[in-house]
Amino acid sequence: MEFETYFPIWNKLTAIQKQKISGSAVERTVKKGTMLHNGSMDCTGLLIVRHGQLRAYILSDAGREISLYRLFDLDICLFSASCILHSIQFEVIIEAEKETDLIVIPAEVYKGILEESAPAANFTNEIMASRFSEVMWLLEQILWKSFDRRLAGFLLEEAALEGTDSLKITHEIIGSHLGNPREVVTRMLRYFQSEGMVRLSRGTVEITDPEKLRRISNG
Amino acid sequence: MEFETYFPIWNKLTAIQKQKISGSAVERTVKKGTMLHNGSMDCTGLLIVRHGQLRAYILSDAGREISLYRLFDLDICLFSASCILHSIQFEVIIEAEKETDLIVIPAEVYKGILEESAPAANFTNEIMASRFSEVMWLLEQILWKSFDRRLAGFLLEEAALEGTDSLKITHEIIGSHLGNPREVVTRMLRYFQSEGMVRLSRGTVEITDPEKLRRISNG
Repeated sequence: MEFETYFPIWNKLTAIQKQKISGSAVERTVKKGTMLHNGSMDCTGLLIVRHGQLRAYILSDAGREISLYRLFDLDICLFSASCILHSIQFEVIIEAEKETDLIVIPAEVYKGILEESAPAANFTNEIMASRFSEVMWLLEQILWKSFDRRLAGFLLEEAALEGTDSLKITHEIIGSHLGNPREVVTRMLRYFQSEGMVRLSRGTVEITDPEKLRRISNG
Repeated sequence: MEFETYFPIWNKLTAIQKQKISGSAVERTVKKGTMLHNGSMDCTGLLIVRHGQLRAYILSDAGREISLYRLFDLDICLFSASCILHSIQFEVIIEAEKETDLIVIPAEVYKGILEESAPAANFTNEIMASRFSEVMWLLEQILWKSFDRRLAGFLLEEAALEGTDSLKITHEIIGSHLGNPREVVTRMLRYFQSEGMVRLSRGTVEITDPEKLRRISNG
């Protein structure tokens, strides 16, 4: 495990601090769909994504969900160690969206490092500020961007992530990503189809005019 | 200026760090309506509210605004020093909602303290986590709480803050707090009036049945 790669501040830690992290960190591989953190229930620790993809989302009382952000290779997941920060008063669910190789640093160990090390604490601050920024972006999307723009952006992002224009995804799942009911998704997708931007078939959304989608996404 | 009151971690700072803060901090009194921070334009510094009330909000391209949270006596405003944190990628506007006595700690001074002091960095982390939690609460309200619940909650909160059931506030301003057009606010207020919960007159919303409003607010 090359911690220098994951922690830009690695060389600002003392030898003992480095030893504490590397001595307690555990490698773990999780299957697609594994729930890694569920609200305040558990405090797994800091997760470093070596390879794979995680999704952070929230869930309403009625069971509706909306994606907050995704984590990719080299990203660090802070909310799986949210017990470290007393002021975190919300519950986020973290699940593996693809098979993912992780490094887990126990929450207690990381907490001890934060208490001693200003560089580690400031680095943690930057991670939180990044996630905060992603949530603010989402809030603005929801408040001010009309649904056609959000859906177009989502399809393009999925296509880029999956490396294909033929997306195996149901309207139900798109809805849960975007926080909208399935019916709303279906209606808009049919509109996109009628405009020649996508072709719909069972369980698949095929992007046929990415340029037009991009124009909608950019407003 | 008694910094112990504002900074729970004051006694974990060194004598030199304390001196840097108290030597550079400036007292300032601002009138209601003063804009203290506007996006990434400026980096005023850390603001401590001695007495008064600040509002943090965001603004859409189309000029619509929505309140993110408010700051009261003893609260610390971090985003007015957002230049300290490189990963803050969003723009917040901070304005004085009442006449407010502030202490301003220059951004550069606070940045220097953060670089040296783990307690200060962790404390800053907790402030950010609190604000993040407030924004997450707002996001959940917007996503999942219907507008009648949000409006009822807003009126009760205003009444508690102002210490009166007779609120001098326009529908336009309520709309800008809640991120809804004025028409939507007016329609719902008329519904509340028809249900005997409020009485409307020019520029005033009088709460006549707080208990019923509370039931709506709690869903």
